Amino acid sequence: MPDRSVPPELYAEVLHFYGKQMQALDNGDFEAYAATFTPDGVFAHSPALPAARTRAGIVEALREFDLRFENDPVQRRHWFNHVVLEQQEDGSLRSTAYALILTIRPGVKAPEVGPSCVVNDVLVRDGSGLHLCSRAVDHDQEFAPVSA
Amino acid sequence: MPDRSVPPELYAEVLHFYGKQMQALDNGDFEAYAATFTPDGVFAHSPALPAARTRAGIVEALREFDLRFENDPVQRRHWFNHVVLEQQEDGSLRSTAYALILTIRPGVKAPEVGPSCVVNDVLVRDGSGLHLCSRAVDHDQEFAPVSA
Amino acid sequence: MPDRSVPPELYAEVLHFYGKQMQALDNGDFEAYAATFTPDGVFAHSPALPAARTRAGIVEALREFDLRFENDPVQRRHWFNHVVLEQQEDGSLRSTAYALILTIRPGVKAPEVGPSCVVNDVLVRDGSGLHLCSRAVDHDQEFAPVSA
Repeated sequence: MPDRSVPPELYAEVLHFYGKQMQALDNGDFEAYAATFTPDGVFAHSPALPAARTRAGIVEALREFDLRFENDPVQRRHWFNHVVLEQQEDGSLRSTAYALILTIRPGVKAPEVGPSCVVNDVLVRDGSGLHLCSRAVDHDQEFAPVSA
Repeated sequence: MPDRSVPPELYAEVLHFYGKQMQALDNGDFEAYAATFTPDGVFAHSPALPAARTRAGIVEALREFDLRFENDPVQRRHWFNHVVLEQQEDGSLRSTAYALILTIRPGVKAPEVGPSCVVNDVLVRDGSGLHLCSRAVDHDQEFAPVSA
Repeated sequence: MPDRSVPPELYAEVLHFYGKQMQALDNGDFEAYAATFTPDGVFAHSPALPAARTRAGIVEALREFDLRFENDPVQRRHWFNHVVLEQQEDGSLRSTAYALILTIRPGVKAPEVGPSCVVNDVLVRDGSGLHLCSRAVDHDQEFAPVSA
Protein backbone atom coordinates (compact mmCIF):
# COMPACT_ATOMS: atom_id res chain seq x y z
CA MET A 1 0.00 0.00 0.00
CA PRO A 2 1.49 3.35 -0.97
CA ASP A 3 2.19 5.92 1.71
CA ARG A 4 -0.43 8.62 1.35
CA SER A 5 0.52 10.66 4.37
CA VAL A 6 1.06 14.35 3.72
CA PRO A 7 4.50 15.61 4.77
CA PRO A 8 4.45 18.79 6.92
CA GLU A 9 6.59 20.61 4.33
CA LEU A 10 3.82 20.12 1.77
CA TYR A 11 1.24 21.29 4.27
CA ALA A 12 3.16 24.54 4.85
CA GLU A 13 3.66 24.96 1.10
CA VAL A 14 -0.10 24.71 0.50
CA LEU A 15 -0.80 27.30 3.22
CA HIS A 16 1.62 29.67 1.50
CA PHE A 17 0.03 28.91 -1.90
CA TYR A 18 -3.36 29.89 -0.45
CA GLY A 19 -1.93 33.07 1.05
CA LYS A 20 -0.56 34.23 -2.30
CA GLN A 21 -3.64 33.12 -4.22
CA MET A 22 -6.20 34.79 -2.00
CA GLN A 23 -4.24 38.02 -1.55
CA ALA A 24 -4.17 38.21 -5.37
CA LEU A 25 -7.94 37.71 -5.53
CA ASP A 26 -8.66 40.30 -2.84
CA ASN A 27 -6.29 42.77 -4.52
CA GLY A 28 -8.37 42.46 -7.68
CA ASP A 29 -5.55 40.80 -9.61
CA PHE A 30 -7.81 38.30 -11.34
CA GLU A 31 -5.12 37.25 -13.84
CA ALA A 32 -2.82 36.22 -10.98
CA TYR A 33 -5.69 34.35 -9.31
CA ALA A 34 -6.56 32.53 -12.55
CA ALA A 35 -2.87 31.67 -13.04
CA THR A 36 -3.01 29.59 -9.84
CA PHE A 37 -5.24 27.16 -11.77
CA THR A 38 -4.06 24.69 -14.40
CA PRO A 39 -4.78 25.91 -17.98
CA ASP A 40 -7.93 23.76 -18.05
CA GLY A 41 -8.84 24.51 -14.43
CA VAL A 42 -12.45 24.58 -13.22
CA PHE A 43 -13.75 27.11 -10.69
CA ALA A 44 -17.22 26.48 -9.26
CA HIS A 45 -17.65 29.69 -7.38
CA SER A 46 -21.12 28.89 -6.10
CA PRO A 47 -23.30 25.77 -6.34
CA ALA A 48 -26.01 27.94 -7.95
CA LEU A 49 -23.87 29.11 -10.88
CA PRO A 50 -22.22 27.26 -13.77
CA ALA A 51 -18.50 26.64 -13.21
CA ALA A 52 -15.93 28.83 -14.96
CA ARG A 53 -13.41 26.90 -17.11
CA THR A 54 -9.88 27.78 -18.29
CA ARG A 55 -7.87 30.73 -16.99
CA ALA A 56 -9.52 33.15 -19.43
CA GLY A 57 -12.94 31.88 -18.37
CA ILE A 58 -12.09 32.33 -14.69
CA VAL A 59 -10.91 35.93 -15.27
CA GLU A 60 -14.14 36.65 -17.16
CA ALA A 61 -16.32 35.18 -14.39
CA LEU A 62 -14.50 37.22 -11.74
CA ARG A 63 -14.85 40.43 -13.76
CA GLU A 64 -18.54 39.81 -14.21
CA PHE A 65 -19.03 39.13 -10.49
CA ASP A 66 -17.04 42.26 -9.68
CA LEU A 67 -19.47 44.47 -11.60
CA ARG A 68 -21.92 44.28 -8.71
CA PHE A 69 -19.51 46.42 -6.69
CA GLU A 70 -19.10 49.01 -9.45
CA ASN A 71 -21.09 51.67 -7.61
CA ASP A 72 -20.47 50.25 -4.15
CA PRO A 73 -16.71 50.14 -3.62
CA VAL A 74 -15.68 47.51 -1.10
CA GLN A 75 -12.56 45.70 0.02
CA ARG A 76 -13.23 41.99 0.30
CA ARG A 77 -11.07 39.57 2.32
CA HIS A 78 -11.38 35.81 1.93
CA TRP A 79 -10.07 34.21 5.13
CA PHE A 80 -9.18 30.50 5.23
CA ASN A 81 -8.89 28.11 8.16
CA HIS A 82 -8.37 24.42 9.00
CA VAL A 83 -6.91 23.23 5.71
CA VAL A 84 -7.02 19.41 5.43
CA LEU A 85 -5.00 17.61 2.74
CA GLU A 86 -5.36 14.11 1.36
CA GLN A 87 -3.12 12.47 -1.19
CA GLN A 88 -5.21 10.93 -3.97
CA GLU A 89 -4.42 7.70 -5.81
CA ASP A 90 -3.81 9.61 -9.05
CA GLY A 91 -1.10 11.75 -7.45
CA SER A 92 -3.28 14.81 -7.01
CA LEU A 93 -3.94 16.39 -3.65
CA ARG A 94 -7.43 16.93 -2.27
CA SER A 95 -7.74 19.97 -0.02
CA THR A 96 -10.71 21.00 2.11
CA ALA A 97 -10.69 24.34 3.92
CA TYR A 98 -13.01 26.67 5.76
CA ALA A 99 -13.49 30.10 4.19
CA LEU A 100 -15.09 33.24 5.57
CA ILE A 101 -15.70 36.34 3.50
CA LEU A 102 -15.31 39.78 5.05
CA THR A 103 -16.59 42.84 3.19
CA ILE A 104 -15.26 46.22 4.26
CA ARG A 105 -16.80 49.54 3.21
CA PRO A 106 -14.96 52.89 3.25
CA GLY A 107 -15.06 54.49 6.67
CA VAL A 108 -16.82 51.55 8.35
CA LYS A 109 -14.67 49.80 10.94
CA ALA A 110 -16.87 46.71 11.37
CA PRO A 111 -16.70 44.44 8.33
CA GLU A 112 -19.74 42.61 7.05
CA VAL A 113 -19.08 38.99 8.05
CA GLY A 114 -20.15 36.06 5.89
CA PRO A 115 -20.94 33.92 4.15
CA SER A 116 -19.09 31.01 5.74
CA CYS A 117 -18.04 28.47 3.12
CA VAL A 118 -16.13 25.25 2.57
CA VAL A 119 -13.62 25.20 -0.27
CA ASN A 120 -13.10 21.85 -2.02
CA ASP A 121 -9.89 21.91 -4.07
CA VAL A 122 -7.86 19.49 -6.15
CA LEU A 123 -4.20 20.47 -6.50
CA VAL A 124 -1.44 19.11 -8.71
CA ARG A 125 2.27 19.79 -8.79
CA ASP A 126 3.72 20.51 -12.21
CA GLY A 127 6.98 22.00 -13.43
CA SER A 128 6.31 25.43 -11.98
CA GLY A 129 4.81 24.44 -8.64
CA LEU A 130 1.33 23.80 -7.27
CA HIS A 131 -1.77 24.56 -9.31
CA LEU A 132 -5.48 24.06 -8.79
CA CYS A 133 -7.24 21.63 -11.15
CA SER A 134 -10.56 22.51 -9.61
CA ARG A 135 -12.20 24.48 -6.85
CA ALA A 136 -15.81 24.00 -5.74
CA VAL A 137 -17.18 26.24 -3.01
CA ASP A 138 -20.04 25.16 -0.73
CA HIS A 139 -21.97 27.77 1.25
CA ASP A 140 -22.79 26.88 4.84
CA GLN A 141 -26.10 28.72 4.91
CA GLU A 142 -27.41 26.48 2.13
CA PHE A 143 -27.12 23.26 4.12
CA ALA A 144 -30.15 21.04 4.36
CA PRO A 145 -31.50 20.92 7.90
CA VAL A 146 -30.60 17.51 9.31
CA SER A 147 -33.65 17.17 11.54
CA ALA A 148 -37.28 18.34 11.63
CA MET B 1 20.15 21.63 28.97
CA PRO B 2 17.90 19.84 26.50
CA ASP B 3 16.84 21.66 23.34
CA ARG B 4 13.17 22.46 23.74
CA SER B 5 12.71 24.41 20.54
CA VAL B 6 9.86 23.27 18.35
CA PRO B 7 10.91 22.34 14.79
CA PRO B 8 8.82 23.94 12.03
CA GLU B 9 7.86 20.49 10.69
CA LEU B 10 6.18 19.73 14.01
CA TYR B 11 4.44 23.09 13.95
CA ALA B 12 2.97 22.36 10.50
CA GLU B 13 2.00 18.85 11.62
CA VAL B 14 0.06 20.25 14.57
CA LEU B 15 -1.77 22.73 12.33
CA HIS B 16 -2.82 19.83 10.09
CA PHE B 17 -3.85 17.79 13.15
CA TYR B 18 -6.12 20.65 14.22
CA GLY B 19 -7.58 20.95 10.72
CA LYS B 20 -8.59 17.30 10.65
CA GLN B 21 -9.78 17.30 14.25
CA MET B 22 -11.98 20.37 14.00
CA GLN B 23 -13.44 19.50 10.59
CA ALA B 24 -14.46 16.16 12.17
CA LEU B 25 -16.12 17.97 15.08
CA ASP B 26 -17.97 20.44 12.86
CA ASN B 27 -19.09 17.60 10.58
CA GLY B 28 -20.71 15.95 13.59
CA ASP B 29 -18.30 13.01 13.52
CA PHE B 30 -17.90 12.87 17.29
CA GLU B 31 -16.20 9.46 17.23
CA ALA B 32 -13.47 10.83 14.96
CA TYR B 33 -13.08 13.85 17.22
CA ALA B 34 -12.84 11.66 20.33
CA ALA B 35 -10.28 9.45 18.55
CA THR B 36 -7.91 12.44 18.39
CA PHE B 37 -7.59 12.11 22.20
CA THR B 38 -5.59 9.45 24.02
CA PRO B 39 -7.80 6.65 25.42
CA ASP B 40 -7.77 8.36 28.83
CA GLY B 41 -8.01 11.86 27.36
CA VAL B 42 -9.70 14.70 29.23
CA PHE B 43 -11.85 17.33 27.49
CA ALA B 44 -12.84 20.37 29.56
CA HIS B 45 -15.24 21.95 27.14
CA SER B 46 -16.13 24.86 29.38
CA PRO B 47 -14.82 26.00 32.76
CA ALA B 48 -18.41 25.83 34.07
CA LEU B 49 -18.91 22.13 33.27
CA PRO B 50 -17.21 18.97 34.55
CA ALA B 51 -14.59 17.62 32.13
CA ALA B 52 -15.40 14.63 29.91
CA ARG B 53 -13.02 11.68 30.30
CA THR B 54 -12.11 8.83 27.93
CA ARG B 55 -13.12 8.68 24.28
CA ALA B 56 -16.55 7.23 25.10
CA GLY B 57 -17.10 9.96 27.66
CA ILE B 58 -16.15 12.65 25.16
CA VAL B 59 -18.56 11.27 22.54
CA GLU B 60 -21.32 11.22 25.16
CA ALA B 61 -20.64 14.81 26.24
CA LEU B 62 -20.69 16.01 22.62
CA ARG B 63 -23.96 14.18 21.90
CA GLU B 64 -25.54 15.72 24.95
CA PHE B 65 -24.36 19.22 24.01
CA ASP B 66 -25.64 18.66 20.49
CA LEU B 67 -29.18 18.06 21.74
CA ARG B 68 -29.63 21.80 22.19
CA PHE B 69 -29.62 22.13 18.40
CA GLU B 70 -32.16 19.34 17.86
CA ASN B 71 -34.94 21.69 16.83
CA ASP B 72 -32.65 24.48 15.68
CA PRO B 73 -30.45 23.05 12.95
CA VAL B 74 -27.14 24.89 12.64
CA GLN B 75 -23.75 24.42 11.07
CA ARG B 76 -21.02 25.28 13.55
CA ARG B 77 -17.45 26.12 12.58
CA HIS B 78 -14.65 26.27 15.14
CA TRP B 79 -11.89 28.48 13.73
CA PHE B 80 -8.37 28.43 15.23
CA ASN B 81 -5.58 30.99 15.09
CA HIS B 82 -2.12 31.74 16.50
CA VAL B 83 -1.15 28.28 17.68
CA VAL B 84 1.81 28.41 20.10
CA LEU B 85 3.72 25.22 20.98
CA GLU B 86 6.05 24.50 23.90
CA GLN B 87 7.99 21.30 24.49
CA GLN B 88 7.44 20.10 28.06
CA GLU B 89 10.03 18.38 30.21
CA ASP B 90 8.05 15.13 30.17
CA GLY B 91 8.16 14.97 26.36
CA SER B 92 4.61 16.21 25.87
CA LEU B 93 3.77 19.30 23.88
CA ARG B 94 1.80 22.21 25.30
CA SER B 95 -0.31 24.04 22.73
CA THR B 96 -2.23 27.28 23.18
CA ALA B 97 -4.49 28.56 20.42
CA TYR B 98 -7.18 31.12 19.80
CA ALA B 99 -10.60 29.73 18.85
CA LEU B 100 -13.66 31.48 17.50
CA ILE B 101 -17.00 29.76 17.05
CA LEU B 102 -19.22 30.61 14.09
CA THR B 103 -22.82 29.41 14.02
CA ILE B 104 -24.61 29.39 10.67
CA ARG B 105 -28.37 29.00 10.26
CA PRO B 106 -30.07 27.85 7.04
CA GLY B 107 -30.65 30.71 4.63
CA VAL B 108 -28.80 33.26 6.76
CA LYS B 109 -25.61 34.55 5.15
CA ALA B 110 -24.19 36.27 8.24
CA PRO B 111 -22.97 33.76 10.83
CA GLU B 112 -23.40 34.34 14.53
CA VAL B 113 -19.88 35.16 15.72
CA GLY B 114 -18.61 34.08 19.15
CA PRO B 115 -17.68 33.14 21.71
CA SER B 116 -13.97 33.82 21.41
CA CYS B 117 -11.97 31.24 23.36
CA VAL B 118 -8.46 30.07 24.18
CA VAL B 119 -7.76 26.36 23.80
CA ASN B 120 -5.17 24.87 26.18
CA ASP B 121 -3.99 21.49 24.90
CA VAL B 122 -1.43 18.88 25.87
CA LEU B 123 -0.35 16.64 22.99
CA VAL B 124 1.70 13.47 22.91
CA ARG B 125 3.11 11.48 20.03
CA ASP B 126 2.51 7.76 20.18
CA GLY B 127 2.74 4.95 17.65
CA SER B 128 -0.07 6.25 15.48
CA GLY B 129 0.73 9.95 15.55
CA LEU B 130 -0.28 12.92 17.66
CA HIS B 131 -3.04 12.68 20.25
CA LEU B 132 -4.49 15.04 22.81
CA CYS B 133 -4.02 14.10 26.48
CA SER B 134 -6.15 17.02 27.51
CA ARG B 135 -7.96 20.07 26.23
CA ALA B 136 -9.25 22.86 28.45
CA VAL B 137 -11.16 25.73 26.86
CA ASP B 138 -11.27 29.22 28.38
CA HIS B 139 -13.94 31.68 27.28
CA ASP B 140 -12.82 35.25 26.72
CA GLN B 141 -16.07 36.85 27.85
CA GLU B 142 -15.59 35.29 31.30
CA PHE B 143 -12.36 37.13 32.06
CA ALA B 144 -12.13 39.04 35.29
CA PRO B 145 -11.92 42.78 34.64
CA VAL B 146 -8.38 43.87 35.41
CA SER B 147 -9.30 47.30 36.67
CA ALA B 148 -12.27 49.04 38.34
CA MET C 1 20.00 34.87 -10.32
CA PRO C 2 19.73 33.95 -6.64
CA ASP C 3 16.97 31.60 -5.51
CA ARG C 4 14.45 33.72 -3.64
CA SER C 5 11.88 31.03 -3.00
CA VAL C 6 10.78 30.67 0.60
CA PRO C 7 11.26 27.16 2.03
CA PRO C 8 8.19 25.71 3.78
CA GLU C 9 10.16 25.32 7.02
CA LEU C 10 10.66 29.08 7.11
CA TYR C 11 6.99 29.64 6.36
CA ALA C 12 5.98 27.48 9.35
CA GLU C 13 8.57 29.22 11.53
CA VAL C 14 7.10 32.62 10.69
CA LEU C 15 3.58 31.41 11.50
CA HIS C 16 4.84 30.26 14.90
CA PHE C 17 6.67 33.57 15.40
CA TYR C 18 3.39 35.41 14.79
CA GLY C 19 1.52 33.11 17.19
CA LYS C 20 3.93 33.85 20.02
CA GLN C 21 4.15 37.55 19.20
CA MET C 22 0.43 38.19 19.01
CA GLN C 23 -0.45 36.09 22.06
CA ALA C 24 2.08 38.23 23.97
CA LEU C 25 0.42 41.42 22.73
CA ASP C 26 -3.10 40.24 23.55
CA ASN C 27 -1.94 39.08 27.00
CA GLY C 28 -0.77 42.63 27.67
CA ASP C 29 2.89 41.58 27.78
CA PHE C 30 4.11 44.65 25.89
CA GLU C 31 7.78 44.00 26.76
CA ALA C 32 7.59 40.55 25.14
CA TYR C 33 5.88 42.06 22.09
CA ALA C 34 8.53 44.79 21.79
CA ALA C 35 11.27 42.16 22.15
CA THR C 36 10.08 40.58 18.87
CA PHE C 37 11.42 43.71 17.13
CA THR C 38 15.07 44.48 16.50
CA PRO C 39 16.51 47.04 18.99
CA ASP C 40 15.95 49.81 16.41
CA GLY C 41 12.63 48.38 15.21
CA VAL C 42 9.86 50.60 13.86
CA PHE C 43 6.16 49.99 14.57
CA ALA C 44 3.66 52.01 12.54
CA HIS C 45 0.53 51.01 14.35
CA SER C 46 -1.79 53.15 12.25
CA PRO C 47 -1.19 55.33 9.17
CA ALA C 48 -2.66 58.27 11.10
CA LEU C 49 -0.13 58.13 13.95
CA PRO C 50 3.64 58.62 14.06
CA ALA C 51 5.56 55.34 14.18
CA ALA C 52 7.02 54.08 17.44
CA ARG C 53 10.78 53.46 17.38
CA THR C 54 13.02 51.19 19.50
CA ARG C 55 11.74 48.60 21.92
CA ALA C 56 11.28 51.14 24.71
CA GLY C 57 9.37 53.39 22.33
CA ILE C 58 7.11 50.54 21.26
CA VAL C 59 6.31 49.63 24.89
CA GLU C 60 5.50 53.27 25.58
CA ALA C 61 3.21 53.55 22.55
CA LEU C 62 1.35 50.37 23.54
CA ARG C 63 0.91 51.56 27.13
CA GLU C 64 -0.46 54.86 25.93
CA PHE C 65 -2.88 53.16 23.53
CA ASP C 66 -3.96 50.83 26.32
CA LEU C 67 -5.06 53.75 28.50
CA ARG C 68 -8.23 54.06 26.45
CA PHE C 69 -9.40 50.76 27.95
CA GLU C 70 -8.62 51.84 31.52
CA ASN C 71 -12.27 52.16 32.49
CA ASP C 72 -13.58 49.75 29.87
CA PRO C 73 -11.86 46.41 30.44
CA VAL C 74 -11.68 44.32 27.29
CA GLN C 75 -9.86 41.30 25.97
CA ARG C 76 -8.51 41.97 22.51
CA ARG C 77 -7.50 39.27 20.03
CA HIS C 78 -5.52 40.04 16.89
CA TRP C 79 -6.17 37.26 14.36
CA PHE C 80 -3.88 36.78 11.35
CA ASN C 81 -4.50 35.04 8.04
CA HIS C 82 -2.92 34.44 4.61
CA VAL C 83 0.68 35.25 5.44
CA VAL C 84 2.74 35.82 2.26
CA LEU C 85 6.54 35.88 2.42
CA GLU C 86 9.06 37.26 -0.05
CA GLN C 87 12.84 37.07 0.22
CA GLN C 88 14.36 40.50 -0.35
CA GLU C 89 17.64 41.19 -2.09
CA ASP C 90 19.23 42.42 1.15
CA GLY C 91 18.52 39.11 2.92
CA SER C 92 15.49 40.37 4.82
CA LEU C 93 12.06 38.83 4.51
CA ARG C 94 9.01 40.82 3.52
CA SER C 95 5.76 39.51 5.04
CA THR C 96 2.22 40.62 4.25
CA ALA C 97 -0.68 39.27 6.29
CA TYR C 98 -4.35 39.89 6.92
CA ALA C 99 -5.27 40.92 10.46
CA LEU C 100 -8.65 41.15 12.14
CA ILE C 101 -9.15 42.58 15.60
CA LEU C 102 -11.74 41.09 17.95
CA THR C 103 -12.70 42.96 21.11
CA ILE C 104 -14.44 40.99 23.86
CA ARG C 105 -16.23 42.56 26.80
CA PRO C 106 -16.96 40.77 30.08
CA GLY C 107 -20.14 38.73 29.91
CA VAL C 108 -20.73 39.42 26.21
CA LYS C 109 -20.46 36.32 24.03
CA ALA C 110 -20.36 38.11 20.67
CA PRO C 111 -17.05 39.93 20.14
CA GLU C 112 -16.90 43.29 18.41
CA VAL C 113 -15.39 42.47 15.00
CA GLY C 114 -13.03 44.84 13.23
CA PRO C 115 -11.17 46.66 11.98
CA SER C 116 -9.79 44.48 9.21
CA CYS C 117 -6.17 45.35 8.46
CA VAL C 118 -3.14 44.38 6.41
CA VAL C 119 0.15 43.99 8.25
CA ASN C 120 3.31 44.86 6.28
CA ASP C 121 6.37 43.45 8.02
CA VAL C 122 10.09 43.20 7.37
CA LEU C 123 11.79 40.36 9.24
CA VAL C 124 15.46 39.52 9.72
CA ARG C 125 17.14 36.50 11.22
CA ASP C 126 19.86 37.23 13.73
CA GLY C 127 21.67 35.17 16.35
CA SER C 128 18.60 34.59 18.49
CA GLY C 129 16.05 33.96 15.76
CA LEU C 130 13.59 36.04 13.76
CA HIS C 131 12.93 39.68 14.60
CA LEU C 132 10.85 42.44 13.05
CA CYS C 133 12.73 45.43 11.63
CA SER C 134 9.47 47.15 10.90
CA ARG C 135 5.72 46.72 10.94
CA ALA C 136 3.29 49.04 9.17
CA VAL C 137 -0.43 48.40 9.53
CA ASP C 138 -2.96 49.47 6.90
CA HIS C 139 -6.65 49.68 7.77
CA ASP C 140 -9.08 48.34 5.18
CA GLN C 141 -11.84 50.83 5.94
CA GLU C 142 -9.50 53.67 4.97
CA PHE C 143 -9.07 52.53 1.37
CA ALA C 144 -9.71 55.04 -1.37
CA PRO C 145 -12.78 54.11 -3.41
CA VAL C 146 -11.58 52.82 -6.78
CA SER C 147 -14.54 54.07 -8.75
CA ALA C 148 -17.11 56.88 -8.58
